[in-house]
Amino acid sequence: MQQKTRIRSPRIVAILTLSVFAACGGRQAANGGGGGAGGDVLALMNARGLSEQDVTAALKTYTPTGKHDEYYTFASGGHGGNLIVIGVPSMRILKYVGVFSPEPWQGYGYGDESGEVLRQGNRGGQTLTWADMHHPALSETAGDYDGKYIFVNDKCNPRVAVVDLSDFTTQQIVSSELIASEHGATFVTPDTDYVVETSQYPAPLGGVYAPIEQFDEKYRGAMIFWKFDKARGRIVPAESFAIELPPYMQDLADCGKKGSDGWVFCNSINTERAYGGILEGKPPLESGATQNDMDYLHCINWRGAEAIAKAGKTETIAGMRVIRMQTAIDEGLLAFVPEPKSPHGVDVTPDGTGIVVGGKLDTHTTLFDIQKIIAQMRAKQFVGKDPYGVPILDFKSSVFGQCEIGLGPLHTVFDDKGFAYTSVFIETVVAKWSLKDLVVVDKIDTHFNIGHLVSAEGDTVSPDGKYLIAMNKWALDRFAPVGPLLPQNFQLIDISGAKMQLLYDMPLPLGEPHNAQMIKAGKLKPIEVYKPIGTNPYTHDVDPSATVAGKERIERKADGVHVYMTAVRSHFSPDIVRVKQGDTVHLHVTSVEQAKDATHGLAIGGQNINVSLEPGKHCNIVFKVERAGVFPFYCTEFCSALHLEMAGYLLVEPK
Amino acid sequence: MQQKTRIRSPRIVAILTLSVFAACGGRQAANGGGGGAGGDVLALMNARGLSEQDVTAALKTYTPTGKHDEYYTFASGGHGGNLIVIGVPSMRILKYVGVFSPEPWQGYGYGDESGEVLRQGNRGGQTLTWADMHHPALSETAGDYDGKYIFVNDKCNPRVAVVDLSDFTTQQIVSSELIASEHGATFVTPDTDYVVETSQYPAPLGGVYAPIEQFDEKYRGAMIFWKFDKARGRIVPAESFAIELPPYMQDLADCGKKGSDGWVFCNSINTERAYGGILEGKPPLESGATQNDMDYLHCINWRGAEAIAKAGKTETIAGMRVIRMQTAIDEGLLAFVPEPKSPHGVDVTPDGTGIVVGGKLDTHTTLFDIQKIIAQMRAKQFVGKDPYGVPILDFKSSVFGQCEIGLGPLHTVFDDKGFAYTSVFIETVVAKWSLKDLVVVDKIDTHFNIGHLVSAEGDTVSPDGKYLIAMNKWALDRFAPVGPLLPQNFQLIDISGAKMQLLYDMPLPLGEPHNAQMIKAGKLKPIEVYKPIGTNPYTHDVDPSATVAGKERIERKADGVHVYMTAVRSHFSPDIVRVKQGDTVHLHVTSVEQAKDATHGLAIGGQNINVSLEPGKHCNIVFKVERAGVFPFYCTEFCSALHLEMAGYLLVEPK
Repeated sequence: MQQKTRIRSPRIVAILTLSVFAACGGRQAANGGGGGAGGDVLALMNARGLSEQDVTAALKTYTPTGKHDEYYTFASGGHGGNLIVIGVPSMRILKYVGVFSPEPWQGYGYGDESGEVLRQGNRGGQTLTWADMHHPALSETAGDYDGKYIFVNDKCNPRVAVVDLSDFTTQQIVSSELIASEHGATFVTPDTDYVVETSQYPAPLGGVYAPIEQFDEKYRGAMIFWKFDKARGRIVPAESFAIELPPYMQDLADCGKKGSDGWVFCNSINTERAYGGILEGKPPLESGATQNDMDYLHCINWRGAEAIAKAGKTETIAGMRVIRMQTAIDEGLLAFVPEPKSPHGVDVTPDGTGIVVGGKLDTHTTLFDIQKIIAQMRAKQFVGKDPYGVPILDFKSSVFGQCEIGLGPLHTVFDDKGFAYTSVFIETVVAKWSLKDLVVVDKIDTHFNIGHLVSAEGDTVSPDGKYLIAMNKWALDRFAPVGPLLPQNFQLIDISGAKMQLLYDMPLPLGEPHNAQMIKAGKLKPIEVYKPIGTNPYTHDVDPSATVAGKERIERKADGVHVYMTAVRSHFSPDIVRVKQGDTVHLHVTSVEQAKDATHGLAIGGQNINVSLEPGKHCNIVFKVERAGVFPFYCTEFCSALHLEMAGYLLVEPK
Repeated sequence: MQQKTRIRSPRIVAILTLSVFAACGGRQAANGGGGGAGGDVLALMNARGLSEQDVTAALKTYTPTGKHDEYYTFASGGHGGNLIVIGVPSMRILKYVGVFSPEPWQGYGYGDESGEVLRQGNRGGQTLTWADMHHPALSETAGDYDGKYIFVNDKCNPRVAVVDLSDFTTQQIVSSELIASEHGATFVTPDTDYVVETSQYPAPLGGVYAPIEQFDEKYRGAMIFWKFDKARGRIVPAESFAIELPPYMQDLADCGKKGSDGWVFCNSINTERAYGGILEGKPPLESGATQNDMDYLHCINWRGAEAIAKAGKTETIAGMRVIRMQTAIDEGLLAFVPEPKSPHGVDVTPDGTGIVVGGKLDTHTTLFDIQKIIAQMRAKQFVGKDPYGVPILDFKSSVFGQCEIGLGPLHTVFDDKGFAYTSVFIETVVAKWSLKDLVVVDKIDTHFNIGHLVSAEGDTVSPDGKYLIAMNKWALDRFAPVGPLLPQNFQLIDISGAKMQLLYDMPLPLGEPHNAQMIKAGKLKPIEVYKPIGTNPYTHDVDPSATVAGKERIERKADGVHVYMTAVRSHFSPDIVRVKQGDTVHLHVTSVEQAKDATHGLAIGGQNINVSLEPGKHCNIVFKVERAGVFPFYCTEFCSALHLEMAGYLLVEPK
């Protein structure tokens, strides 16, 4: 058949193609395969203004009912405080996971034990109900994503959270008062021994006050190494430690891998140590912090630091063991390499030999050679010291080379063919370049103002290539307008061919993602129901108060009224709860369902309570009834034809 | 060219088509139009498992970069407490609008005046930070959407919110303690004179206590008519009123239109007045409430009720003017028509002549004839009374007829060709049927457990046809798994042809939408920036504390430290704020930007504060600094290459 349609002119091909496809649409109608809606493809292309390029893009992304996406992308939710799970290539959002912000659909922070997880994140007596999440990090084994956990950070009030990917719930939030803000988090060591969190805006360590005029002397940065217990799925603060750093603005970080395992690299801006003061006659930070042509790439031997911390050469500040800067210098744990102007991205290559740095006021990416850096540090081949005594390596002796990339390079990810992909903010493109030759081979426009970018498994030891997402900060005219606050725009790009092809524009409806990681869908094995019935998601064990069907009861005890309740389609038992004004009520609720997706919710009027009861889950809810009255409670998750009848009454008799 | 490819067999067409299209892909590569990524369509279809039906579905939904969707769908966020804005046909979520739940990306409830809006929604001294949102209603003029406002409800703690579609912000929340829960909300009268909210689970009116054994005597339902001031965009509680109803579970409602304007219809379940009591030896509500073969469609003359309320024939309960049930009966405002078993949906036809009711334990939809109902009520042709004296009309004398539809009909929407589309829960299909002939003409499977459905402008006086969304409650295996709590599934269906065609499966990543409305995109005219600079979004006027560029200052006053601040790429001025522990700080922040999408955020460490500063917006933030220390503040919305440098310090000197 190919021969019959052999083509002499591209123009004719196009016409032929469309005509034939139109005939094909007609056939579908004749056959009843979708009927009149089967459609005339040419008419569709005309009616909807689709180019042939759009047609292939549509077919590369459209995911029919029941077919699953190939990859999950986990994106930070920015100042939405939640984690975004996206299917690739369909670019459909599969879930927002509540992390730092309460989220009532998941019942996260609305009455049950999840509130305890959120309360772990309070700092210095301040209740915190939001976060500025930037850089998610999937747990790794031997430098490859293992699909078990994901870590996320809060830039504003420095915190790190652990999300369990077996049930997509936030299990833990840790925070250290050592630092006052962060940005370079989260990044994991190749076997997830540690989760790295680095300060951004310098402040006196430990949350104390010092006048800003004492910036150079008393303000500091720090890098925290949170110890992760993989078996328990918990960060262990007591086994964690930090390294004190100068009061520059430490920025992003990345851990060495393969031959460079044991090292972590972190860039910095504002080595000028400006701190603003516009009304006081000083330059704004944006100019004060951009005077130097070079800032400092921080090179840190974390494996060495771990040994030093174990040896007790630390000082405890705000509960955190801190390796003082002088100790880090003396022990050879810390050195600087100059990096071009106002660096932002710092990304270790898949083979672990290099680090790519993008200087956002530069026109190059710089590929540093890790082994050269390590060798110079070991040989103490320094060319100077910073004002704090940190040894500085020679720039030229530390690099493999530079690539002329365009104005404003930021972040770099990798594919499986030796190419790097760098987001170029000011030029608003993705630049594809050869790590071997340091030459740009392709560029593609983004819409608009690209920040981070992510490729399939692109920061592991074995990137997949195939897909890349440009995480654009401005959407401008890309989508139907939704008021002055616009979504961000994720653009899916096919990187499987020689030329990059734009496949899809995806608006971000909530939150402002910064970074993301993309993992093969098959690596995740989430549970479908909690087993056995009565499992508490926060202990992964049957709860001592789990209620067995047939044993539902109400017991008045010294500490209040205990209600042992079950939920099943379509009733709660008990469905009438009689208490007195002022009572403390303890609801012990077990979903005795075991069918996938048979989720119930339990909302209680007048109490600001709503919990999500996935099949088999148990939760405990404690509240005090301050007010007399009649308060309906009911199932909030549409569960059956008689869902509306799945209700009861909390009857609060006046005192 | 058509002739050359004239086809004899459908099978050959398919092969030909795909071969030609493959050649076309080759052409693209040769021409460099997308390069190697242009692709071989046949290979793509094979690789991705796409049928020809999938190809047309892809082309009907794919929306290339920069092209806008044709429709907005506004879906409730269920117990997520927010409003979901979806583009159709791409099914991309354009925005989640914070309504009843705080949302930090929008800065909603995180420090500025938006917190006052949320606080309006507290009830009886209880802070409420979530809601169970069910039924959004777009404002209407002459029965057609006008694109100005949207109203949403809270089923759990009865409340109604007003969202302004000029800037997609929540402007007001109202609540009446008259009722303890609701469900039949929100529905608007055809000119948006009133927003209707109806109770669901009966309770003593006004929030008082009564033993459940006095259910028949003291528990009641009520329908509230919230008066809406279209010019001001605000509900006026003092001009609102309610009608007392029997203690059935009033369910959904819909307002008459055209010839039936002035009437509202509301169905009910549980006319058995069961209230559960499983542990006390009574049947669960799900069986107690489903004994009767018929429940009661409530027919209410709201225009008459408005006159009665104006005449002062009301009793004030919990601040709400209530027309007592006996008054409503005496004045001929209220009558019942029997409706088949456990009704759920009640939907007035576009021409205003009929109401379709779906009985969820029935196999029919019933089309009631509104004029017959009105005539019988006016003639007082009743066949009986309910236990509360409410007159009952004869069923057969009130209907146009019934359509045999399948098991579990719920909700009905309409197209522009005289067809109705009913969601059939138990059969899990959409049934298309003729309003004229009362015959099903097509059915399409949904995946799975369809609840509501929405068609383009499908509940106005002039439906568009074209698109329908099945709002399915269970997703089961449709998407890559995300733990035990799964998304819902919106399925977009093409209803432009004789046969319905499934176009797209869309996961709902957050919240459980119940109902939605779909409006032509061109009807909305959202603003791009706030004008003039310094506009307060809640007064729509320049704020008295708006800060002019060049006039930034810090003033210590009797009530604390007032900071008059501006934000512009890429600095805040002032960027150093010095206060003393215990001070109250008043931040008056104006974004002096006027470029579209040039949004800044302002986050302050240690204070749980983050505001969104769209271009031109002014906001006021008040907080007390309880703790001494150094707290960075910074821009949370990536605004420029020097965004990270848009930062400052709040310096809190110890007492």
